[in-house]
Amino acid sequence: MSVEATPSQLADARRARAAHRAGESAPTSGVAPGLTQANLIAVPADWAFETLLYAQRNPKPCPVLEVIERGRTESALAPGSDIRTDIGRYRVWRDGELAEETSDARGAWAEHPDLVAFLIGCSFTFETGLADAGIPIRHQELGRNVPMYRTNVACAPAGRLRGEMVVSMRPIPAGRVADAVRISGRTPAVHGAPVHVGDPASLGIIDLQTPDFGDAPEVREGEIPVFWACGVTPQAAIMASRPPFAVTHAPGYMFVTDVPDAEYLV
Amino acid sequence: MSVEATPSQLADARRARAAHRAGESAPTSGVAPGLTQANLIAVPADWAFETLLYAQRNPKPCPVLEVIERGRTESALAPGSDIRTDIGRYRVWRDGELAEETSDARGAWAEHPDLVAFLIGCSFTFETGLADAGIPIRHQELGRNVPMYRTNVACAPAGRLRGEMVVSMRPIPAGRVADAVRISGRTPAVHGAPVHVGDPASLGIIDLQTPDFGDAPEVREGEIPVFWACGVTPQAAIMASRPPFAVTHAPGYMFVTDVPDAEYLV
Repeated sequence: MSVEATPSQLADARRARAAHRAGESAPTSGVAPGLTQANLIAVPADWAFETLLYAQRNPKPCPVLEVIERGRTESALAPGSDIRTDIGRYRVWRDGELAEETSDARGAWAEHPDLVAFLIGCSFTFETGLADAGIPIRHQELGRNVPMYRTNVACAPAGRLRGEMVVSMRPIPAGRVADAVRISGRTPAVHGAPVHVGDPASLGIIDLQTPDFGDAPEVREGEIPVFWACGVTPQAAIMASRPPFAVTHAPGYMFVTDVPDAEYLV
Repeated sequence: MSVEATPSQLADARRARAAHRAGESAPTSGVAPGLTQANLIAVPADWAFETLLYAQRNPKPCPVLEVIERGRTESALAPGSDIRTDIGRYRVWRDGELAEETSDARGAWAEHPDLVAFLIGCSFTFETGLADAGIPIRHQELGRNVPMYRTNVACAPAGRLRGEMVVSMRPIPAGRVADAVRISGRTPAVHGAPVHVGDPASLGIIDLQTPDFGDAPEVREGEIPVFWACGVTPQAAIMASRPPFAVTHAPGYMFVTDVPDAEYLV
């Protein structure tokens, strides 16, 4: 498939990246609707093979959209972009601990010029499809970040990397759950169909109201919590595996690309 | 999905691997029908990241089913297997040149104990679905190897790796081309839908009767040549990029796994 973004979509995406580059930051759910957003993980070159292998072995939470090799900082998914500045909020990790949040990761890249950056698909991609079908996107309605949870589901390890799957949750009216499964299932390259429907406890989630990342949800009468594999999963792997250095986006603060969501439809 | 192979399928697959281990070799199209077969490329560890990245950037010809890390020789897709012996015919490459064909690659692994092996999806996987739908698989009917061609379509490079796409060809009755597209399109993890239908010249193929790999085809009246991305593509990359050492299967002589084809349906 080769779908063209509209001029207005491209203007939205460029405006968002320029705002982030200027230091502004806010969760990006609903920004530049119809264009794909991406999670970031960047690791020293010595960890790049294991990171790519971890993604290959865990394609539901870690679908790789692009690998930006060492020495490069522009994403092919967004010509003119700079992966070091065009995300609203970055996290810098040292030995598996969150060391800093910043709106400018140029210092991190200067410290580790051999960083290899991975852009991973994001569930915001299929939110457009859900919204088009009249399925409510609660966190957008409330102007909040999507709630995300660490689970008791182990990912397949790769070399030194291991960790649990992270999931995002959207409350879906019971009568629309099947539609939400079908619609998101059409984009297997960006998490695809839910990994779980309706029983947080069996994922090891004790309290839906206290997500590990993002904001608390509001689940209304007649709604079922539906869980999708989440591109924050590499951050759980960083916490569990303690590479000496890594840079990621802050959960919910995504890299906005110029690529139409439809590019990832099967 | 989690589909179980039948005892009779598993017996077929184990019999095939045991025969290959004992030194027998023949093209594997039609062997252990309903179970997935795989292409092999093994490279020294220093080339593993670029190989995995090449596959990630060229998922149609190079869908990765499994990565067998250095020091390991058993495929998780076939418990009890040995990737050094269980393929009927191997090719050993030195500096991009075919140095040897052998039925036993233990010597190659002994020479390079750091080999990392990649199992890549094979179009034989969807042949079962085509045959089930009554679409003729000519090379099977004739007891020949499938014809494969180098093309003028460049793959996306990755580091030191570059090369053209290799395609396999099946003549399909004109009235069944759409069915063949739909059926193979259901398994995007193993090449998926054709990359090209009906015009060999636009792929740079001068003469259908002289394939670069496999046996000559027989295209009958009313049949259209249909081209699928092929897992021999990494061998074209070896020829073009000249890594110091590599081991592959011989085209058409695949690794037979215990995994049902249905596992790769979307």
